[in-house]
Amino acid sequence: MTIKYDDMFSVCAMGMKRSVIRELLKLTRNPEIISFAGGLPDPHTFPVKEISDISRDILDSRGALALQYGPTEGEEPLRQQLVRFMAGDGMTVPMEDIMVTTGSQQGLDIVGKILIDPGDVVIVELPSYLGGLQAFSQYHPEFVGIPQDDDGMQMEILEEKLVELTKAGKRIKFIYVVPDFQNPSGVTLSKDRRVRLLELAAQYNLLIVEDSPYRALRFEGEAPPTIYSTDKDGRTMYLSTFSKTFCPGFRMGWIVAPPKIMNRIVMAKQAIDLCCPSFTQLITAEYMSRGRMPAQLAMIVDLYKVKRNAMLEQLAKYMPPTVTWTRPEGGLFLWIRLPEHIDSEIIFKQAIEKKVAYVIGSAFYCDGGGKNTLRINFSFASLDQITEGVKRLADLFNSVI
Amino acid sequence: MTIKYDDMFSVCAMGMKRSVIRELLKLTRNPEIISFAGGLPDPHTFPVKEISDISRDILDSRGALALQYGPTEGEEPLRQQLVRFMAGDGMTVPMEDIMVTTGSQQGLDIVGKILIDPGDVVIVELPSYLGGLQAFSQYHPEFVGIPQDDDGMQMEILEEKLVELTKAGKRIKFIYVVPDFQNPSGVTLSKDRRVRLLELAAQYNLLIVEDSPYRALRFEGEAPPTIYSTDKDGRTMYLSTFSKTFCPGFRMGWIVAPPKIMNRIVMAKQAIDLCCPSFTQLITAEYMSRGRMPAQLAMIVDLYKVKRNAMLEQLAKYMPPTVTWTRPEGGLFLWIRLPEHIDSEIIFKQAIEKKVAYVIGSAFYCDGGGKNTLRINFSFASLDQITEGVKRLADLFNSVI
Repeated sequence: MTIKYDDMFSVCAMGMKRSVIRELLKLTRNPEIISFAGGLPDPHTFPVKEISDISRDILDSRGALALQYGPTEGEEPLRQQLVRFMAGDGMTVPMEDIMVTTGSQQGLDIVGKILIDPGDVVIVELPSYLGGLQAFSQYHPEFVGIPQDDDGMQMEILEEKLVELTKAGKRIKFIYVVPDFQNPSGVTLSKDRRVRLLELAAQYNLLIVEDSPYRALRFEGEAPPTIYSTDKDGRTMYLSTFSKTFCPGFRMGWIVAPPKIMNRIVMAKQAIDLCCPSFTQLITAEYMSRGRMPAQLAMIVDLYKVKRNAMLEQLAKYMPPTVTWTRPEGGLFLWIRLPEHIDSEIIFKQAIEKKVAYVIGSAFYCDGGGKNTLRINFSFASLDQITEGVKRLADLFNSVI
Repeated sequence: MTIKYDDMFSVCAMGMKRSVIRELLKLTRNPEIISFAGGLPDPHTFPVKEISDISRDILDSRGALALQYGPTEGEEPLRQQLVRFMAGDGMTVPMEDIMVTTGSQQGLDIVGKILIDPGDVVIVELPSYLGGLQAFSQYHPEFVGIPQDDDGMQMEILEEKLVELTKAGKRIKFIYVVPDFQNPSGVTLSKDRRVRLLELAAQYNLLIVEDSPYRALRFEGEAPPTIYSTDKDGRTMYLSTFSKTFCPGFRMGWIVAPPKIMNRIVMAKQAIDLCCPSFTQLITAEYMSRGRMPAQLAMIVDLYKVKRNAMLEQLAKYMPPTVTWTRPEGGLFLWIRLPEHIDSEIIFKQAIEKKVAYVIGSAFYCDGGGKNTLRINFSFASLDQITEGVKRLADLFNSVI
């Protein structure tokens, strides 16, 4: 008999969409296309040899442990290293408040799962990280977007919205921010705004989800403290990952949360996949305990800074005067704004014809806005590709503006 | 200000419970305790040296790929090997119908997510795999349990229940079975019942979730065909894992589903964690492509058969006559039934005092039954421990019966 699968799916499944980015990436597989679309790190930065040596050493000395099931919370040697790693960034985190996740994406899924009931308000940046929107969407929140400027989410607008939502009797659960070199905009939330964000969260009794995968990749300027370290109330969950700084192929992320929230996070993780792979956790812990992470980070910062500089230089040289862009102090992305009448989705096909790719900005807007914006990545392409790719983009924009 | 975290959690989070098994396992960490409680494979079976060699080779030859993000569906070399692996078990599966998961547990979570709306009926075995119950519970189904006998789920009772549930206007979504050497009972669903299960599923328009992590570990007798291979309608999802046959420390599982369901599974995976680690996927694929899996499986089968035999022998020798147990033809577990008036949870403390551990049977009953039952594992303990541990258990039972 014929099965009508659509009758079988849950409401959650029927609401799912394929990732715009993942689908666009398929169009960019032609090797002639210079792709600024993905968010991939430069594979030349992967410490292949060290990982190979450490893999052998771990298997020689702790094979039975490395290949067995591990604790739901993650392997202790790794969590201990994470305590130290975050201490180096001004964060005092007890090991018990850390759980290892499959990338920070899994942390976002779990946060959504344990916090969002359908209709709850989740406050996000405009634009916001697409993977965060996707993870939370599964739990059917009402997204409320707060525009950013060059200092990140605008606190006056946030306050207005909080007043308005509270008056309307909405149940607001948390504020989701990517405060450092945001994906997609490249913008960093200023120190003052971090303080104000915490004040407003306290006033309205909200949690904060601080998702910071790029924080260690600062090229210049002084890092504002993490929201987590500024928070004295225990209302901040902090998510990070080594996908951009060590290697994505381990899918090594972590989440930090106050004990009562961590308790639920661990229960969710048990039901979701029991635990992360021990093998890659122990390799990562050993890499850190051998003191290799600082040099690794410094090398990546140097490389990406050169790439960002090349991109900024080319943009300044070739872009039409009505096109503007952000100047990120770190991270992987910058953000381009076209004149209002240009829709980056409509001209995407022409970009592919010109053999250059980006991600359309509207993908990052929970309210469907941002049609005249786009995200470009500077970590993956070579310097030659950056030079040539920006020229192609400028050609395109010149032809449509 | 003080945060009332409990006001923040979703309905899903408030319904979560810590895994009974994981919590009991904490009591069994005392090295003097002989634990039959966990479901761990014997670490002596892990192919440590081969994994070490292959890790080095993969990093030498494909380091940039192995450490980069991979496809949501999983690495093609692994999916191709899985096509061959399942073909060797009589299953014809196109690669496109396979997605790699973090253990089969993640497959169960995704199945629950894409199929279950609150109140939907999910039919399970009595007893059933605890991890399956936990994964599905997150989506608030109504569980209906069907008792097993020595040939697995009883089809007459299933039919009665289907009539009854349909009359009551319930929306039944799927039947969840662990048909081979079931966890926890050790029982295998007979060939005839597999056919009947598919007939009933067709009649009532239901999907089937076939979760078979132990299937390759058959000590004796002939394997009935998988439900998946018998199904001509495309109503069966098949889940498996290498956690019991290769190593759990890679968390290497997979799910097979018809294209329309796989489409939703892939979308869910994107939102959940983007993709599984490439590194461990490529190592596993290479291990398979070098033709090592058959010898690995044969070695494990030989070892676990000896352990099962030892356990059966000791049980026959020491157990009081009112205690009965299953005789699994493979897998990792067997199932003990005590006289009705004995509650395995109440006597668990005494077991720990006698320095032996098991899992209480009621943990596996969605209806809270099975109080006089318990699960014991024979894969992890040594032969000496099996001999001594069964004596201790028999002592305990003799003292309370």
